[in-house]
Amino acid sequence: MKFGGTSVANIERIRNVARHVKRERDAGAEIAVVVSAMSGKTNELVAWCAEAAPLYDPAEYDAIVASGELVTAGLLAIILKDSGIPARSWQGWQIPILTDDAHGVARIAGIDSAGLLAGFSRGEVAVVAGFQGLHQPTNRVTTLGRGGSDTSAVALAAAIKADRCDIYTDVDGVYTTDPRIVPKARRLEKVAFEEMLEMASLGAKVLQVRSVELAMMRKVKTYVRSSFDDPLKPNPGTLICDEEDIVEQQIVTGIAYSTDEAQITLRRVADKPGVAAAIFVPLAEANINVDMIIQVVSDDTTTTDITFTVPSAEFLRAKTILEERRGAIGYSSLQGAEDVVKVSAIGVGMRSHAGVAAKAFKALAEKGINIRAITTSEIKFSVLIDAAYTELAVRTLHSLYGLDAAA
Amino acid sequence: MKFGGTSVANIERIRNVARHVKRERDAGAEIAVVVSAMSGKTNELVAWCAEAAPLYDPAEYDAIVASGELVTAGLLAIILKDSGIPARSWQGWQIPILTDDAHGVARIAGIDSAGLLAGFSRGEVAVVAGFQGLHQPTNRVTTLGRGGSDTSAVALAAAIKADRCDIYTDVDGVYTTDPRIVPKARRLEKVAFEEMLEMASLGAKVLQVRSVELAMMRKVKTYVRSSFDDPLKPNPGTLICDEEDIVEQQIVTGIAYSTDEAQITLRRVADKPGVAAAIFVPLAEANINVDMIIQVVSDDTTTTDITFTVPSAEFLRAKTILEERRGAIGYSSLQGAEDVVKVSAIGVGMRSHAGVAAKAFKALAEKGINIRAITTSEIKFSVLIDAAYTELAVRTLHSLYGLDAAA
Repeated sequence: MKFGGTSVANIERIRNVARHVKRERDAGAEIAVVVSAMSGKTNELVAWCAEAAPLYDPAEYDAIVASGELVTAGLLAIILKDSGIPARSWQGWQIPILTDDAHGVARIAGIDSAGLLAGFSRGEVAVVAGFQGLHQPTNRVTTLGRGGSDTSAVALAAAIKADRCDIYTDVDGVYTTDPRIVPKARRLEKVAFEEMLEMASLGAKVLQVRSVELAMMRKVKTYVRSSFDDPLKPNPGTLICDEEDIVEQQIVTGIAYSTDEAQITLRRVADKPGVAAAIFVPLAEANINVDMIIQVVSDDTTTTDITFTVPSAEFLRAKTILEERRGAIGYSSLQGAEDVVKVSAIGVGMRSHAGVAAKAFKALAEKGINIRAITTSEIKFSVLIDAAYTELAVRTLHSLYGLDAAA
Repeated sequence: MKFGGTSVANIERIRNVARHVKRERDAGAEIAVVVSAMSGKTNELVAWCAEAAPLYDPAEYDAIVASGELVTAGLLAIILKDSGIPARSWQGWQIPILTDDAHGVARIAGIDSAGLLAGFSRGEVAVVAGFQGLHQPTNRVTTLGRGGSDTSAVALAAAIKADRCDIYTDVDGVYTTDPRIVPKARRLEKVAFEEMLEMASLGAKVLQVRSVELAMMRKVKTYVRSSFDDPLKPNPGTLICDEEDIVEQQIVTGIAYSTDEAQITLRRVADKPGVAAAIFVPLAEANINVDMIIQVVSDDTTTTDITFTVPSAEFLRAKTILEERRGAIGYSSLQGAEDVVKVSAIGVGMRSHAGVAAKAFKALAEKGINIRAITTSEIKFSVLIDAAYTELAVRTLHSLYGLDAAA
């Protein structure tokens, strides 16, 4: 069981978490519960680091921000014990959850499950501080990146060979799209690992991308469900599982959108070998993730226009890097746009159906929505459009692929 | 160097701490800095524990409340590194600082100084999270009690064989008495370990009692000084040292007072063997600390009145215990008073001077102050009086023993 920041935001909510734990335990389960920091706490700690020094030491950052989860783990253990359920908290280094030394974005290297299993045999619920691990031989605390508690939970579930991993959050499952934009969005009963991975990568915030990769790789049956349900009458949530386990396969399973995009266009770039490298190698070296590259031959045939997207947070840095290299690259002008959004349709059914994306391009054109860029892969396609058309585009595609709930 | 909660209350103050560290490092010192949690943070964590369950699990309490120091240790390390000083934070379990398993009031059993010393040889400042340790073989976090960071600092100083241990606080040293009550109070240049121990026990809040015991036992030269001084022009503070190192010995060194007292009187207790045990054994078993016991023969010679003090926080519990045992003890009535204060005079010079206390009784009587109880030891005496007379009594004794600063 994993509970995120809003589910443990105060003592009353942690008591509610204890009720969920009690229900599962009463049903005979041995349980490890992974908890995040109380909502807002991690942001507070991150802000202090940034105030202390803009380029803070990442190992110290980890030592600081990992402390929030220690508090919730201890509080949940206190409440469980107080209600008669044997329990103890586990800090990342106590288990230990071993990671590499990539502070701030560490990857789990191994988990020693012996201590937790011994606890189970004593009837104890293991309450685990999420988001964190330990690097050896430095003996220092690491963290797994924002949303890392999801990954803690899936990795623990794999390590203790759990029957299931329930990710409790503030929504009751994975939806066909964001219900705030499309009231007709439906909760999915099941979604394939590959689809969930694309959805998480393309803007759906329900799970950390890495946790889905890990669940897929280690075949962990993962449920997304709500901590705000009545603990005695919980909804089943959404099961993330192998494609083969989904009987009624849709062509498109969900529509995601991401506002975290910015577009850069370089006009009249000399159309000669090596020019792509001149643009993209410096961006890669600066750790800027480039997406959706398109190249259009311009009026005169010796130059081309190159358009691509970068995360909004990296927009200014990317612009600066390219402007500094204007001479080396050779372009006439650089145009940027931040008011763009990437809308994506995801479904493993696309593998066996042709023309899925083409249908979308036509539908969007009919609504007067201009497509700035397109990318496709085996099980998804994305279009970059003006941000003003986000809702219209998402609703159009949601209807187009038959995802609307019956009225 | 040790900095308490008010000295690290926010990032700006932690920057100021870094300036003190830099000054000492520039002067050639190898430094371990012990830090407390930002002021208010420990109280917040304790309040959450109490809200979670009145009888919270003490091991979980420790895991929770020890987290505050991790934050300040990381932040100070970030700021030191940012200003070009090699540094790293150390959590209690990383060093480790080993303790017994008395959660909430653990005692340090041993410190492995190898990691810190290796850091010194690389030029690193060790920033140590105070107040906490690790118990083995349980591998669980322990805490040393309120004010425990003082003890962390003294124990570390002993372990690394430091030349000195500087306790930075919000006052610039140890005073002859509380300057808020006696404006003529003077900062002491030196104070003997034994005197400091009595002062801390009798109400002076400047240092945790256990830290003074440890400094005395391990002969750690300890200074109390201010973190709010200009880091480039610091005042020397007060040295706590062996009695022999103090040349100009006063008879009385300081006047302390404690409002944390409550008085209980049992009237007409049968004057027979075993009655004292009937009263005080149950209190001891309930971990209630009894002080200042006096026994007065009452009008009829077969019974006596017994008066004693307990900490205010334990007053109601003590009363309940005694009322439940009224039959077994045999007394006519129980009277309690919470508006009392214990005023004490401390000085190693009392050992060689007779009549020091008698002088005080006379002076207090002349001011019309009624003494409810008296205790004396080799180097101090205490009187219990009505709380309303606190300031008058403290000022009277401060003048009486020549402690007032020259005008």
